[in-house]
Amino acid sequence: MRDLSALFDPAAVAIIGASDDPAKWGHAVARQALRAGARRPVHLINKRGGTVLGRPAARKLAEVGEPVDLVVVAVPERFFEDAVDDALAQGARAIVGITAGFAETGADGEARQRAIAERVRSAGAALVGPNCLGLVDNTTEVYLSSDAFAPGSVAFLSQSGNLALELGLRLSAKGLGISRFISYGNQADVTLVDLLTSCAEHEATRAIAVYAEDFADGRAFASAAAATSKPVVLLAAGRGAASARSAASHTGALTSPADVVAAACRDAGIHQAATPRELTVLLEALSGPRRATGRRTAVLTDGGGHGSIAADVAEAVGLTVPELSGPLQSDLRDLLWGPSAVGNPVDLAGMGEQDPASYPAIVESLIGAPEVDAVLMTGFFGGYSAAAAPDAASPSDAASPTGAAPTSGASPSDAASPSGTTSPSGAAFPSGGASVLDGADAGAGLGDATLGRLEVAAAERFAAAVAGESTPVVVQSMYPDSPSCRVLTAAGIPVFGAVEDAARALAAVTGGRRVRAIASLPPPQAAIVDAGYFAARELLARAGVAFPEAREVRDEAGVLAAAGLLAPPYALKAVGLLHKTDAGGVALGLNDPGELVAAFREMRARLGEMAYSVERMVKPSDSVELIAGVKRDPRFGPIVMVGLGGVHAEVLRDVAFALAPIDAGRARELLGELRSSALLHGVRNRPPVNIAAVAETVAALAEVAAAHPEIVEIEVNPLLAGPEGPIALDARVIL
Amino acid sequence: MRDLSALFDPAAVAIIGASDDPAKWGHAVARQALRAGARRPVHLINKRGGTVLGRPAARKLAEVGEPVDLVVVAVPERFFEDAVDDALAQGARAIVGITAGFAETGADGEARQRAIAERVRSAGAALVGPNCLGLVDNTTEVYLSSDAFAPGSVAFLSQSGNLALELGLRLSAKGLGISRFISYGNQADVTLVDLLTSCAEHEATRAIAVYAEDFADGRAFASAAAATSKPVVLLAAGRGAASARSAASHTGALTSPADVVAAACRDAGIHQAATPRELTVLLEALSGPRRATGRRTAVLTDGGGHGSIAADVAEAVGLTVPELSGPLQSDLRDLLWGPSAVGNPVDLAGMGEQDPASYPAIVESLIGAPEVDAVLMTGFFGGYSAAAAPDAASPSDAASPTGAAPTSGASPSDAASPSGTTSPSGAAFPSGGASVLDGADAGAGLGDATLGRLEVAAAERFAAAVAGESTPVVVQSMYPDSPSCRVLTAAGIPVFGAVEDAARALAAVTGGRRVRAIASLPPPQAAIVDAGYFAARELLARAGVAFPEAREVRDEAGVLAAAGLLAPPYALKAVGLLHKTDAGGVALGLNDPGELVAAFREMRARLGEMAYSVERMVKPSDSVELIAGVKRDPRFGPIVMVGLGGVHAEVLRDVAFALAPIDAGRARELLGELRSSALLHGVRNRPPVNIAAVAETVAALAEVAAAHPEIVEIEVNPLLAGPEGPIALDARVIL
Repeated sequence: MRDLSALFDPAAVAIIGASDDPAKWGHAVARQALRAGARRPVHLINKRGGTVLGRPAARKLAEVGEPVDLVVVAVPERFFEDAVDDALAQGARAIVGITAGFAETGADGEARQRAIAERVRSAGAALVGPNCLGLVDNTTEVYLSSDAFAPGSVAFLSQSGNLALELGLRLSAKGLGISRFISYGNQADVTLVDLLTSCAEHEATRAIAVYAEDFADGRAFASAAAATSKPVVLLAAGRGAASARSAASHTGALTSPADVVAAACRDAGIHQAATPRELTVLLEALSGPRRATGRRTAVLTDGGGHGSIAADVAEAVGLTVPELSGPLQSDLRDLLWGPSAVGNPVDLAGMGEQDPASYPAIVESLIGAPEVDAVLMTGFFGGYSAAAAPDAASPSDAASPTGAAPTSGASPSDAASPSGTTSPSGAAFPSGGASVLDGADAGAGLGDATLGRLEVAAAERFAAAVAGESTPVVVQSMYPDSPSCRVLTAAGIPVFGAVEDAARALAAVTGGRRVRAIASLPPPQAAIVDAGYFAARELLARAGVAFPEAREVRDEAGVLAAAGLLAPPYALKAVGLLHKTDAGGVALGLNDPGELVAAFREMRARLGEMAYSVERMVKPSDSVELIAGVKRDPRFGPIVMVGLGGVHAEVLRDVAFALAPIDAGRARELLGELRSSALLHGVRNRPPVNIAAVAETVAALAEVAAAHPEIVEIEVNPLLAGPEGPIALDARVIL
Repeated sequence: MRDLSALFDPAAVAIIGASDDPAKWGHAVARQALRAGARRPVHLINKRGGTVLGRPAARKLAEVGEPVDLVVVAVPERFFEDAVDDALAQGARAIVGITAGFAETGADGEARQRAIAERVRSAGAALVGPNCLGLVDNTTEVYLSSDAFAPGSVAFLSQSGNLALELGLRLSAKGLGISRFISYGNQADVTLVDLLTSCAEHEATRAIAVYAEDFADGRAFASAAAATSKPVVLLAAGRGAASARSAASHTGALTSPADVVAAACRDAGIHQAATPRELTVLLEALSGPRRATGRRTAVLTDGGGHGSIAADVAEAVGLTVPELSGPLQSDLRDLLWGPSAVGNPVDLAGMGEQDPASYPAIVESLIGAPEVDAVLMTGFFGGYSAAAAPDAASPSDAASPTGAAPTSGASPSDAASPSGTTSPSGAAFPSGGASVLDGADAGAGLGDATLGRLEVAAAERFAAAVAGESTPVVVQSMYPDSPSCRVLTAAGIPVFGAVEDAARALAAVTGGRRVRAIASLPPPQAAIVDAGYFAARELLARAGVAFPEAREVRDEAGVLAAAGLLAPPYALKAVGLLHKTDAGGVALGLNDPGELVAAFREMRARLGEMAYSVERMVKPSDSVELIAGVKRDPRFGPIVMVGLGGVHAEVLRDVAFALAPIDAGRARELLGELRSSALLHGVRNRPPVNIAAVAETVAALAEVAAAHPEIVEIEVNPLLAGPEGPIALDARVIL
């Protein structure tokens, strides 16, 4: 691991290019840097000298006259090298290169950038950037970016400044903040991987967020993420990018850049977010301590509508909402009244108004039950205390400074009136309604203020109950900023205004985190040069992939000789063709040498002189056509793919991916991930496929590809999987 | 259409059960009703008389002494009938039954409710509810619910009170509001369909939102929605509910309640939302006038990160982000500078800071281009004016009253500092960064205040440009509440804080609205009573479904006779079995009478005496196994399903649904919706399936099922679809 101490806690800082011009980077960074006050010397360098931000500025770094271990370079691109040399001469151990105009502009900039990085490294220093937005470490008062971020426990490594701004705003709106922010730019020297590794060791950092457009060494990134116990959440650009259409194999066409990143994240236990908003939701959930290995979720509400919607949304994100057991239902029943529903969702059906303490009472029972992995509370809770706090009466994901309260003369306390919520609002509230109409129960006549106080007390008991347990509990409330909900938030219970956010958050902390050590690539074998059909067969056969007997032939004599060596029926293939099936280069079910020769004459007349293959025909009865292949990704290396093959391969796109190499166990998992995996177990009294043997074959294919960097794509399609095991009916290698 | 004028604009209103007890419905409703002030007489009725809310209350409605056309009944359930009778006696033409305790409690309540509804109808009046939350018409000052809603153009028909509260809060936070709110409860008399039809005619209503737990007559609901040109958005409970596991056929098992609702919505052009938040997003988009039939979306940003994420999210919701044409790219290029990207996403790359007017300049070009159907602007726009308006510096979907600004001493104007945003924040800003460092361009030295003013001016030009065009434009901004974004919102351009919301909104107003007139059910045919295999074959064969020749046999003599009549090879089926294939009740490829008899002996010895079928064996070469079936849903009637059949049916769940009956054209569309539809067109030099003939068969099956109400499920599986047309290899009817 690289020593980046000078980057994150320097003894002295200098900013070359410090300026009074508010439109210049050197101005913004200097202004921020000075916020650190007495923590460490901050030297401002401006070629014109004079003063900057009211402080004397040196013309050159050398004039500073004392060692400076961290130097920010924010000068025009044509002066960049000189500034770097000055910094190194002054003993800088870390340089932050703000200046842009290098690798991102093309090959010349790339070469120039490489030379600079080389100089920095040979001087024993580290360079962040160039073309970056600077860095912030709120734990050491290093403020070397143009912007300030609320302090907190999230480290954010980003290739976009605006997204960092948005994440900062979103986190602080949720009471969270940033431990470190590093804009890593072009990664000329210090890479995303170096920074991830450093943040994994950073005590004040509890979660690591990454926005990446270019992963550089993606496999190393996955390994670093897999190696830390801290949650890593990735927002990756280009998920929607079309897959490589020029791919020569099905594997190539079926393996999109998004598939590759998703496979790496699955293997490394990285959480993926699609938007800054989802990133924030995941960070809020993952910053907390509570986790569950299961996904059985109890939904708690006081009002049928919210419960039904929450259950649907929970299932949509992979949680399950099973009916609660009889004993647990009767325990809950004892705590509630007639109209309440206890099956799951648990619906207080008005009891919440009669006695707000019924919320924590139910939660205590739920989180104590072995059959409940997680709890999702949804709906009105918070409304009673919100009624006494007008500014809080709004879902915070919809809040605007003015928009919270209805504007028709109704006050928020109207909108939050208890009678509007736990009374008969639909079929879920039969006697809940009647009771209020009777006015005959405990809660009758409770005013808003009283209910508000009782609700806050209920929230405190709720928080205490959850604090004592490891069961994840997430809350959606119409009034997330209400006093009651603030009590929950303060206790580390995530509260969201939108139920889809609450469900997503819960999904992120349930189901367990399955991390697989990212396999390193085996030493390269002697490179193969022949990408022909028979060479591919030989390569794979040596690795243990089974093929039907075959003979290469080029003329009728060869065909007849082959017919004599192999048992009928025969298959004939024009193996010189890239897409032989589509081109009519395959003849099957040739029952005797005569049919074989006739087929050969016809095919050669149509397709011309080339290599043909005579093979023992294999009948696909009781077997499933699979496809197995490996594509080498420039960032993440070899990616193995398995899927439903033959004509279904590209039509149904039923495929699964992993970083290669993999062992047979992992290959078996991939087969299990297929939508059509049930076919392998033998549906409709078909015999089951020999899955163990298929897994061995897939693992062997992955091993071969991993050991041959020259292989761009390799695939077996179809891989005929039957009860006796798999047999490869075709093979292709692209170098 | 029913006359509901007394419901929505009564001459006089009475509330039976008005009360001073804040826990009683009669209190909340009376308090709201009185807000209408002088609009119409409001009579409060309380059996104890005296005063309610400081006004004299009558003991009985009769004491009012003048006709009352709308009466709200909010009394304990045991007094409900008497109150209804009083209302009818007083000439009420509309009654709102708040009281709960009827159909939702079981059969007795159901019968009681039916009797009440009958009395109301025979008196020529209309009853909403019972077990409802009341109603509001903001356009006529009818406030007869417990809560107030900001006025606006959305009608909300709901079976949940709390969800209505949440929607009301969310809409008002977006500056939208409610025209009418009706809690329709148990639909004893006035139904969801009546109310939808009324709101479709309601001038002040521009969009109709529905929350439904029970659709009652779902087909009539779909028809009513299809009949209006106003957007209808549905939030339906129970989407995640498990499909009917007891279903006897594959069709039954494959057709979940969620599939049925989704099929009805697709046919009727209803927009479906999964959460209150999504419902609000769709309503905001659909309340505007702009629509596009295509989905080609131009993404505009000033900062690479936001553009990439927005493009990914747009594709994820079904929009396309195609590369712009050469001519359009060069037009845009003329408006921008070197670093800008014009392919799509269009990235100003710093130009926005140099000249905020470049935003509207680009938008003018984009919305004028025939190749652009819609525009999605994303990212920082709004930040410059937000910098001068601290309270606005936050994505509104993350805002909390206190959380917007970083809390580390940084002011919002730090967070929104221009230099933090259009300067080199990653690879997207090469000379965008350099330029700022040079300080050599137009924008250099522009302060926050100046930029803020320029941005607001740009927003005004932006709004003017969009106003003149029909092209949908949706904006995501980190600063949705900024002065600039308020200008856009005021011009009817939806602005969201979250890019997924912006993309979802855009998807809702693009791609065109395809509404199909919901087919009414044909007159019932003579009910069939025999659900046996041969009866099913005969029923379908008469409708034009092709089957292989077959003979029913029960003994060896019959088998031999059949063998004489049919050409080999033969198939033998134990048609008395429900799952004959799974039970080993099917023998295929019997090449002569001998093999046939042997198979019959073996099968009968194993399965016993029952009806068997000897059939001409059909070879599935060059054909695709499909499944076609119809399930009768209690709410929506017959639902036709087509999908990939045979062993793949339940494994891959590749199915499509529509309300039956359908014509061949619609059947063809359904086949086209299948993931595996490419198989039908002949992949890998297979001959194409006769799709027209398959569509005819599916339409015939749907017609039969629609004409036979006694048929619960009917299916053909497999339906062997080949070049010559489809042939049904099995048929099943469940009565």
